Amino acid sequence: MHPLPEKPAWLNRVSILGVGLLGGSVGMSLRRSGVHVVGYSRRESSCRAAVDAGAVDEGYTDIEAACRGSDVVVIASPVDKIAQLASQAGESLARHALITDVGSTKARIVAEVESISPAASRQFIAAHPIAGSEKTGVENASETLLDGKAVILTPRDDAPNELIDRAKAFWLQTGSQLVSMTPAEHDERLATVSHVPHLVSSLLASLPDDESMPLVGSGWKDMTRVASGDPLMWAAICQHNREAILSQIDRMADELLSLREKLACDDPASLMQWLEDAKARKDATL
Amino acid sequence: MHPLPEKPAWLNRVSILGVGLLGGSVGMSLRRSGVHVVGYSRRESSCRAAVDAGAVDEGYTDIEAACRGSDVVVIASPVDKIAQLASQAGESLARHALITDVGSTKARIVAEVESISPAASRQFIAAHPIAGSEKTGVENASETLLDGKAVILTPRDDAPNELIDRAKAFWLQTGSQLVSMTPAEHDERLATVSHVPHLVSSLLASLPDDESMPLVGSGWKDMTRVASGDPLMWAAICQHNREAILSQIDRMADELLSLREKLACDDPASLMQWLEDAKARKDATL
Repeated sequence: MHPLPEKPAWLNRVSILGVGLLGGSVGMSLRRSGVHVVGYSRRESSCRAAVDAGAVDEGYTDIEAACRGSDVVVIASPVDKIAQLASQAGESLARHALITDVGSTKARIVAEVESISPAASRQFIAAHPIAGSEKTGVENASETLLDGKAVILTPRDDAPNELIDRAKAFWLQTGSQLVSMTPAEHDERLATVSHVPHLVSSLLASLPDDESMPLVGSGWKDMTRVASGDPLMWAAICQHNREAILSQIDRMADELLSLREKLACDDPASLMQWLEDAKARKDATL
Repeated sequence: MHPLPEKPAWLNRVSILGVGLLGGSVGMSLRRSGVHVVGYSRRESSCRAAVDAGAVDEGYTDIEAACRGSDVVVIASPVDKIAQLASQAGESLARHALITDVGSTKARIVAEVESISPAASRQFIAAHPIAGSEKTGVENASETLLDGKAVILTPRDDAPNELIDRAKAFWLQTGSQLVSMTPAEHDERLATVSHVPHLVSSLLASLPDDESMPLVGSGWKDMTRVASGDPLMWAAICQHNREAILSQIDRMADELLSLREKLACDDPASLMQWLEDAKARKDATL
């Protein structure tokens, strides 16, 4: 088992709104420390599945019942539902409780929570665990999914230090490592390392015609793995982070053009150097 | 063990020129059927490594010594060296022997062999096993690498049926499955499913700045795996198949622009449909 910090005395009951792959994994990771985890799903069958999978101790189809008495509420829904759920959770929580989320975009979520519910916003520290999969559902959740993974915290400028410290202690308890930045910086960086690569994966999956499909190798298969992800979830991410994604698509198109020129003008040394630089950057992450 | 065909009576001795990841795996796969495999490398140390890895029964630093008396010569060098090696191999071979290769491009290799050595060309059936890795070297070779993988044969129009049949029987003996097409069709299809995806992988590896590197997730990691491949090998592939790659880069740039428009005009239904179509194409290969 991954070495976890000692559980903070104040962290006893956590509610997870949306117990899918990521929400379920957060629940499982916390239960390792003896935290009591409560799940919320709209459907009774999903509540049962979350309990059966060991992701939560108990499940409710009512948000108020799920949140009552909790020290932390984690919103693990698609990004376009997070602000509304944060607002609803805020109504059932003690004022000291923390609200956090797992959304893949941050600026719009932070703004929406503030706009819909200033009260909930004062308890909210936005977060994004860099952990996921093209798979979905609590049946693919794992208690070790977050171990050693980065969780990006994007607190508002005016967030009290005490709340930020609670958010840090909470996320460390899942086994993850912490990085902090502004919501805007998060969205720009994630457009580069996640959102645009995802769209490129879908694009590469679309290019081969039927007759070329039997010819795909392990390279194409790896590059298109994430194209199997949930279209609804990714469409919402693209809407939320549209400006940053558009700007990174433009950058990608420029780089593609520059690569095209290297190839077209038959400049082997320049192409070779480019491939070597890319390999060096990749190998530095291995 | 993968079910292999019965070894043809005529297939007893095979020479492999270039015993790296792919050449070594071809050797290992054939040795399962009791074929005697001879390796050629320029360096004595590479010959020893190939023998030690179990990829070949014996190794030579002299092409003539390596090829003499063989029924099949497999050229497993970078694509820009294949035609010259085919020509040299032809000088040491009996006229009934088969010359084949593992190059990732086909039209230029077929044309070069014909131009450098019409005699070798009459014994040559070009081939491309869709098996490989970002890893290199005989130490990463495996006797099962080709099992169930597609090997694309691109015989010239005037190749005798008897020679084509030998090439088919030979490649089936490695555990692979066969597909046949023209060299030009091969190069177009492979530009789409392999060469351009490889360049896009290198491009995605180059995009994040140093501060974004700790934020990369499993999606980026999978999509950039092949960017670790050998730059020398890939630069040669890009030179060889430049026209088809340029045309597929143009197609990719068009698709990127069309995706950009879907995002920019805030058309969630159209983006959603596009993501669903890409997912369906990907999931059909799972």
